[in-house]
Amino acid sequence: MLKLNFAKKLAAVAACTALLASPLMAAEKVYRLKLAETWPTNFPVFGDATKNMAALAEEMSAGRLKITIDSKNKHKAPLGIFDMVRAGQYDMGHSASYYWKGKVPNTLYFTTMPFGMTAPEQYGWFYYGGGQELMDEVYGQFNLMSFPGGNTGNQMGGWFQKEIKSLDDLQGLKMRIPGFAGEVMAKLGAKPTNIPAGELYTALERRTIDALEWVGPSLDLRMGFHKIAPYYYTGWHEPATELQFMINKKKFESLPADLQQILKTAMRTAAYDMYIQSYNDSGENWDSMKKEFPNIQVKSFPKDVVAAMRAANTELLAEKAAADPLAKKILDSQAEYMKKSRAWTEISDKAYLDSAVN
Amino acid sequence: MLKLNFAKKLAAVAACTALLASPLMAAEKVYRLKLAETWPTNFPVFGDATKNMAALAEEMSAGRLKITIDSKNKHKAPLGIFDMVRAGQYDMGHSASYYWKGKVPNTLYFTTMPFGMTAPEQYGWFYYGGGQELMDEVYGQFNLMSFPGGNTGNQMGGWFQKEIKSLDDLQGLKMRIPGFAGEVMAKLGAKPTNIPAGELYTALERRTIDALEWVGPSLDLRMGFHKIAPYYYTGWHEPATELQFMINKKKFESLPADLQQILKTAMRTAAYDMYIQSYNDSGENWDSMKKEFPNIQVKSFPKDVVAAMRAANTELLAEKAAADPLAKKILDSQAEYMKKSRAWTEISDKAYLDSAVN
Repeated sequence: MLKLNFAKKLAAVAACTALLASPLMAAEKVYRLKLAETWPTNFPVFGDATKNMAALAEEMSAGRLKITIDSKNKHKAPLGIFDMVRAGQYDMGHSASYYWKGKVPNTLYFTTMPFGMTAPEQYGWFYYGGGQELMDEVYGQFNLMSFPGGNTGNQMGGWFQKEIKSLDDLQGLKMRIPGFAGEVMAKLGAKPTNIPAGELYTALERRTIDALEWVGPSLDLRMGFHKIAPYYYTGWHEPATELQFMINKKKFESLPADLQQILKTAMRTAAYDMYIQSYNDSGENWDSMKKEFPNIQVKSFPKDVVAAMRAANTELLAEKAAADPLAKKILDSQAEYMKKSRAWTEISDKAYLDSAVN
Repeated sequence: MLKLNFAKKLAAVAACTALLASPLMAAEKVYRLKLAETWPTNFPVFGDATKNMAALAEEMSAGRLKITIDSKNKHKAPLGIFDMVRAGQYDMGHSASYYWKGKVPNTLYFTTMPFGMTAPEQYGWFYYGGGQELMDEVYGQFNLMSFPGGNTGNQMGGWFQKEIKSLDDLQGLKMRIPGFAGEVMAKLGAKPTNIPAGELYTALERRTIDALEWVGPSLDLRMGFHKIAPYYYTGWHEPATELQFMINKKKFESLPADLQQILKTAMRTAAYDMYIQSYNDSGENWDSMKKEFPNIQVKSFPKDVVAAMRAANTELLAEKAAADPLAKKILDSQAEYMKKSRAWTEISDKAYLDSAVN
């Protein structure tokens, strides 16, 4: 080790830092990335995932990788993330792949599917069953990379003002249920509507809508729906909603190899952590809801209603597969993977839960 | 940036590297850690978790953190990991906390418990419900740190030569089922035995034992038990077996802050990944088993047998809680956490799986 007094040492370190920032050895250069998230500032759970990711990346890189996060309050374009990251206006995004289905139809399949995989099944598909490679194929065409960005776990079927006893009860039912699940409901005669989050409580209270789905106890508690709707239906349409981290591909490739691995691992860990946080918060918040309003009635849709939803879903997916070879490739991959994975779920977690509750 | 020709630049970098290895700025020093794992060389899934962790740590640190892995073939002490890491003979270990219950009784509670939490419930407890802090309390007394090290998912109840129709069928049943679950079985009249892995197939084939539990399809397939025992029972005793990464605490604290975070994140990610790999491999291997031997009969234990197992388990845990205040604190924490978390599982994943299969 060189022997220097402290002031000389500091000066030498400064010189070295400059040298090491050169292409020969870029160890000390600071890389700054800007991330835009779809959510408002300090949105629970989803917003924790981006903060967790950025903190991990900064700590693991000793400050060489700094990620600043702009919420929708700042960038004003919650559904503009895809375009902004593609164009390089932002380096990264945190959003959900199915938001881009109007723009790039095959992005639909990388969030969750009605009657689809549970969270561990779907992570298995992403990481060991070819799902990530298919997502690379879809996003690669747009100079984008997409990775799992945190799972909400199984989403509840929603809050209903009246009980659904048969398919007749769905006729004309005004329900806030956006996206592909809304298409399924429309096939059964319901009237899906979309209403901004801030107006949902009043709309449900005043019966402007008869029902709505949001997420589950982790995020529903603060919305207060349990105070104004008596029925809480179990889920069918989003069994494992996975958010996404998006990155501008050229920007990612410009990072040194160690920072690429740090960034990928920070995203992967933050995604898993969000799944576990969602599970935790759902348990805590469901407990709080029941304590505040012990009369919440948890219901599952009747078998014939579920069968009709499933049939409508199958029909819609068959149309998509027939129209686009890549859609067919993705849907076949999911169906084949899920068949094996679900057979395991049946004899493991499901059998355990069935016998443990008796 | 300094302007130097290439040879001068290389020399300057070498001098800088020496300087930066000083305590003022230790960026380029290489830290080497030795890890001992309980498993044989290239053991599937469990051994992948250690390799995955070491590769992540090395790549994220640009080679500054190098972890070498010794399997039991090298160190010859599969159940000596606790002592070797405590003494500093190895810096890290990969094993399972419940192996140390004979030495430190409260290590029993950080792997899995009969009739206990599922994998997402238990990760919730570790990371958001105080479980990690309790593990710190137990291991901190021994200059050790322990972290989740990868989950096998729900383990199967085992392979049986004859069907279990009532409690009578457990009387005198010779079964390979080690550890705490073996104590539960003994209370019901079974004769738990332990037999080395290499002799299990022959023992079951020749009826030296009537039954055995191993893991589940992810690791059972290669053992071949499905060829010689007709009944495969669903699980009750290890709903979410979590392995452990152990570290010598002084060694960990001697690492720079960025490498500490890299190491913790590499372990956390590798643990989650092993859970997902186990899920994937279980699905794949269960599919292979059924194709090879379509007559495997999957059974769940009758309700009265499960009720008796549960009662015996409750009684044994009450004894442990009465004997040790820290055991009581841990068991109370788990019971309280599981109550809330399971209520959520019931209306989310379980309700979904119940309705989706119809």
